Amino acid sequence: MKRIGILTGGGDCAGLNAIIRAVTLRAIQEYGWEVYGIYQGTHGLLRRPVGAMKLDLSFCTGNLLRQGGTILGSTNKGDPFVYPMTDGTFKDVSMDVIEGYHLLRLDALIGIGGDGSQDILRRLAQRGNLNLVTIPKTIDDDLSHTEHSIGFMTAVDVATEALDRLQPTAASHDRVMILEVMGRDAGHIALATGIAGGADIILIPEIPYQMAVVAHRINSIREQGRNFALMVVSEAVGTETGEKAKVMDREGRARYGGISQYLADRVTDLTGAETRFTVLGHVQRGGQPIFQDRVLASVFGVHAVDLVAQGKFDRMVAWQNRKVVDVPIQQAIGGYQAVDVKGSLVNTARGLGIYFGDEKN
Amino acid sequence: MKRIGILTGGGDCAGLNAIIRAVTLRAIQEYGWEVYGIYQGTHGLLRRPVGAMKLDLSFCTGNLLRQGGTILGSTNKGDPFVYPMTDGTFKDVSMDVIEGYHLLRLDALIGIGGDGSQDILRRLAQRGNLNLVTIPKTIDDDLSHTEHSIGFMTAVDVATEALDRLQPTAASHDRVMILEVMGRDAGHIALATGIAGGADIILIPEIPYQMAVVAHRINSIREQGRNFALMVVSEAVGTETGEKAKVMDREGRARYGGISQYLADRVTDLTGAETRFTVLGHVQRGGQPIFQDRVLASVFGVHAVDLVAQGKFDRMVAWQNRKVVDVPIQQAIGGYQAVDVKGSLVNTARGLGIYFGDEKN
Amino acid sequence: MKRIGILTGGGDCAGLNAIIRAVTLRAIQEYGWEVYGIYQGTHGLLRRPVGAMKLDLSFCTGNLLRQGGTILGSTNKGDPFVYPMTDGTFKDVSMDVIEGYHLLRLDALIGIGGDGSQDILRRLAQRGNLNLVTIPKTIDDDLSHTEHSIGFMTAVDVATEALDRLQPTAASHDRVMILEVMGRDAGHIALATGIAGGADIILIPEIPYQMAVVAHRINSIREQGRNFALMVVSEAVGTETGEKAKVMDREGRARYGGISQYLADRVTDLTGAETRFTVLGHVQRGGQPIFQDRVLASVFGVHAVDLVAQGKFDRMVAWQNRKVVDVPIQQAIGGYQAVDVKGSLVNTARGLGIYFGDEKN
Amino acid sequence: MKRIGILTGGGDCAGLNAIIRAVTLRAIQEYGWEVYGIYQGTHGLLRRPVGAMKLDLSFCTGNLLRQGGTILGSTNKGDPFVYPMTDGTFKDVSMDVIEGYHLLRLDALIGIGGDGSQDILRRLAQRGNLNLVTIPKTIDDDLSHTEHSIGFMTAVDVATEALDRLQPTAASHDRVMILEVMGRDAGHIALATGIAGGADIILIPEIPYQMAVVAHRINSIREQGRNFALMVVSEAVGTETGEKAKVMDREGRARYGGISQYLADRVTDLTGAETRFTVLGHVQRGGQPIFQDRVLASVFGVHAVDLVAQGKFDRMVAWQNRKVVDVPIQQAIGGYQAVDVKGSLVNTARGLGIYFGDEKN
Repeated sequence: MKRIGILTGGGDCAGLNAIIRAVTLRAIQEYGWEVYGIYQGTHGLLRRPVGAMKLDLSFCTGNLLRQGGTILGSTNKGDPFVYPMTDGTFKDVSMDVIEGYHLLRLDALIGIGGDGSQDILRRLAQRGNLNLVTIPKTIDDDLSHTEHSIGFMTAVDVATEALDRLQPTAASHDRVMILEVMGRDAGHIALATGIAGGADIILIPEIPYQMAVVAHRINSIREQGRNFALMVVSEAVGTETGEKAKVMDREGRARYGGISQYLADRVTDLTGAETRFTVLGHVQRGGQPIFQDRVLASVFGVHAVDLVAQGKFDRMVAWQNRKVVDVPIQQAIGGYQAVDVKGSLVNTARGLGIYFGDEKN
Repeated sequence: MKRIGILTGGGDCAGLNAIIRAVTLRAIQEYGWEVYGIYQGTHGLLRRPVGAMKLDLSFCTGNLLRQGGTILGSTNKGDPFVYPMTDGTFKDVSMDVIEGYHLLRLDALIGIGGDGSQDILRRLAQRGNLNLVTIPKTIDDDLSHTEHSIGFMTAVDVATEALDRLQPTAASHDRVMILEVMGRDAGHIALATGIAGGADIILIPEIPYQMAVVAHRINSIREQGRNFALMVVSEAVGTETGEKAKVMDREGRARYGGISQYLADRVTDLTGAETRFTVLGHVQRGGQPIFQDRVLASVFGVHAVDLVAQGKFDRMVAWQNRKVVDVPIQQAIGGYQAVDVKGSLVNTARGLGIYFGDEKN
Repeated sequence: MKRIGILTGGGDCAGLNAIIRAVTLRAIQEYGWEVYGIYQGTHGLLRRPVGAMKLDLSFCTGNLLRQGGTILGSTNKGDPFVYPMTDGTFKDVSMDVIEGYHLLRLDALIGIGGDGSQDILRRLAQRGNLNLVTIPKTIDDDLSHTEHSIGFMTAVDVATEALDRLQPTAASHDRVMILEVMGRDAGHIALATGIAGGADIILIPEIPYQMAVVAHRINSIREQGRNFALMVVSEAVGTETGEKAKVMDREGRARYGGISQYLADRVTDLTGAETRFTVLGHVQRGGQPIFQDRVLASVFGVHAVDLVAQGKFDRMVAWQNRKVVDVPIQQAIGGYQAVDVKGSLVNTARGLGIYFGDEKN
Repeated sequence: MKRIGILTGGGDCAGLNAIIRAVTLRAIQEYGWEVYGIYQGTHGLLRRPVGAMKLDLSFCTGNLLRQGGTILGSTNKGDPFVYPMTDGTFKDVSMDVIEGYHLLRLDALIGIGGDGSQDILRRLAQRGNLNLVTIPKTIDDDLSHTEHSIGFMTAVDVATEALDRLQPTAASHDRVMILEVMGRDAGHIALATGIAGGADIILIPEIPYQMAVVAHRINSIREQGRNFALMVVSEAVGTETGEKAKVMDREGRARYGGISQYLADRVTDLTGAETRFTVLGHVQRGGQPIFQDRVLASVFGVHAVDLVAQGKFDRMVAWQNRKVVDVPIQQAIGGYQAVDVKGSLVNTARGLGIYFGDEKN
């Protein structure tokens, strides 16, 4: 009988609990193993006694499949190799994390995370000779080697619903409505949301934009007799000149709504249009996973356990071409999946008349 | 055969189109009248030719009942008694509006609006001897003499859904999550959302708060072993000392997220908790009306037409005690329905352990 | 310190868990009592050891507020005064239930139920001198003395969503679509759903219908050039002649979809229209409560505990005129709230051109 | 300048209007063509004058993207090669359909349909030398050569939501709940819904089942202490012995709920469990498309127009490996995509402990 651990690292998203459920069901029902859920990513392994709970089948009934967030907790602070101490210094605590793994007497660890978390886990696994399998999750969907990561599709679903709601109020009041969506570096959420929600303009970090083109698009819409416009903007987009948009307060601290406020001001300046914006924020993360995230989470969870059973470690599970596969972690996190600016979705958006603010429109 | 006009004034909300549909169906099917939809509130009556379209039964099939916003357009700029001219001056254009009514050869006008719009319409009706019936709508639900106004219940539904989504991400990351909801002067949306969504703290303008009490509540939650907290804040809330919360940018302009940013900063200062906020904004206005707003809109629309048929003017339709009634407009807009700080909902919230930040908790 | 019990009786609905949460929060936080959740209505009190669990604050965090169904379980079999034994006979086991109450050493019992469950609870309370407060729940909303019972509004929300989905497919295929909704004796769900979802015909048990009128309405719609129609039917409706509609199988057992199948057949016979029906069934019960059911459940739960604290027993909590009140149980269940056939909602429906199948249209 | 026609054939589903919008936007904005929407599939081309309307950009604003069904209407009666006449005979009217195409002076036709509709369109195109491009839609998702067809993902979303709602009521009342979902020949909807909604048993036509295994699963769940079970059944499933399940009424007509009623009876007979079923029906077709169906519809619509522009006919657009492609229609409809009983989804379901009723569990 094996003992396996499972942890969730980095920002939370919809579908994490569905993975935890699938791993627990598979490990116990098929293999008769014990499953330990580790609290707050690698931090649970740092605590003494180790922060973890035994997961059994009773966790898997009821609502876990449908529940947003992660019952294990997560954190995106603190790489154990350069761990922030309370005195402001940094320390390598990686051996303590590895010790935590051994204190739990684990035979293997299933780590759920984005590229950053997986990279840390992999370095821990190498240093400590740990048996690691990873599962990709990120609402940004910027991990390569898998068609989708857990959390992305629910985030787009929530953002599309928001755009559906902004459209009537924009139309009723002749406004330009800006919806700012998540996506730390990649524009996937903005691109899919913009197509699905009928945006006129989509701004993503992969395509530099010019305000003159944006303003031209808004003006041409109005000349055609439509009195409103919808813009979707990735939070990763900067100002026209590529700087990070900031609203500074009186004390000089950077403030919320930077890029949206910047764009709203510029649009008003250039077109005279009444402009409003919504920064959708964390509602994109915590909702109930939609069916695809639940299905994909189930697929990934079962396959990860099977990899452990087969002794195939240092691999990330992935979805390719309607099949679950697995790839070396190193290879998976080495790649990066930005929006393909010549891909089918960008072409479709352009084909619908959506502007990205560049000269191609 | 009569000719009636219908217009929507003030900010849009869910259910306006359902009213327009009900008015049109009733007026045509029961009475055989003609119905004219006037564009953009009273502005349509200012334009020459008058901005209006004839509404027939073909508008009433399909999606109108379910659709957010208003197909007539609305505007919250420009009281015709002190109308802003392009040169920056103000002018009384009320007689032009009245002329528009007569140019359309209307026998009566059904005006949908909050207290402000209804007040303007009533003064127009008095000056021009127009036949007016009004229908109350405001997501703020602060009109007296009716249990609910159109738009409120959908707004709370959207806000509750947002809080449902913020809860798991708050719990996963040990955060204080602040949700800022609409409500220009009244805290009804915040109160209902906070109860329905399981908030720990609700701040509304009707109950002055102290940050020390807020911080105490958050600390006591954490002492009990729960690692997160949910706050719902009405946009009408000011700083602890009652000033309007503002974030100023480098050019000194007031910025978005004022009260939320203020509260997040103060909570972090006082408790050390990691804090995030979401300003829900216009998604509360434009969504599909939920069933209650559709039912109430239908009730109001039918009754308003019946009032016109009976020659009962200068009255607002209202819902009281499971029945549709009508009251003098003057009386309706003379009252104001703030949150009853000794009412059943506030008592319930306190009874659940929700704090309002005052000393009563 | 008091010990109170809470149980849910009769068919489940959305909002029961929100009541359980509110009762637990109030009883523990305000009064420091112990709360016992009794399993499966009065059946938990029949079992030895008594089927119950102690509820503490840890049950109240997380998802309980939002979760459909009842964590305590329920049952609608078995009046303890005429309890069905396994040998097919019936027995009065009421003293055993009362004994269960005393074995748990309860000071009071909060019972959540419709009229049937409340009647049984009241007779138990009288026989055993138990301290009882009741909370009204029924998706049928047919309890008098309270504007709404728990569960109704969520049921209508679900049914309206279904009608929203049936409309486009009806329109695309020129069909008559029939939606059968719950409502054992009363037509409240059908009436509200039909108005909110844009039905052409609503059949409720309070208004006898004639197929000739139904067929006339469908034909007149088609003559006006609209190619589809929507019907909402309460499950309580019988055949045109007032019999219970049944589909019998080859073995003579009554079958599913009785009234819908009957109506679909008759409509097709009389009009030649292509007809489809959907029996919505239990999805109306188990969903997440919408905000009103959560708010009302919270109001009721807090007030019920306060009644216990004040020693006011034999009372049902209720919502009247924007306030929580309480009424004698006897009085509450003595009344019955059918659809008021001269009330505002029926008038509104007729005002929109909706037919009830009687001669008034 | 070209003139193109567009039609929707077969059963409606979510996303058809999003295709019509994308085709119209692309054809007019990029190429300056005229677009004609043909009513009710090929039937519009049979009518004289031809049943069609010119589509312009005004159709594309507002709600078309989000709206279920098809504004063009559809029909699944009547292959023009063996067309049912009113006298009960059949006639080949294919040359009349082809004449309709020429009367509209079309240069090309974009046909949206499943395998049946596409097959008919292709034969018409061959006979009449028409320029045809097809777009795959079917909620059954059983077309090969494309990862998904339009309509499937929304159908699963709706069905999963229903299962989410049935779970709490099943648990509250210790019931076996059966959800019957669509899928004329293939089990894709049932499989995805069952995984996403946490089913215990999934019955699909691709895997023959035995009632003894089903009963064994239900009994073993109860032995483990869980008091309820969820089953998802494809409408395509027959009785245990492979016959079509029928409920016959007194007149011998086949009745609704055949397979669900059959299974409910058998489960009750074999396990004694209280059983309820829901036949979800047409709500799976008509809802608002979820974002993926809107995105895929947009991709397909734009690409179909581009194929016409390039003179590439007799091809079906498809989605493979994150890219839009096109394949010969003949090849596309020649294949058939049943559930892969050794594929990742079936393996995942088995891995979670879900039974298909065969001996492999």
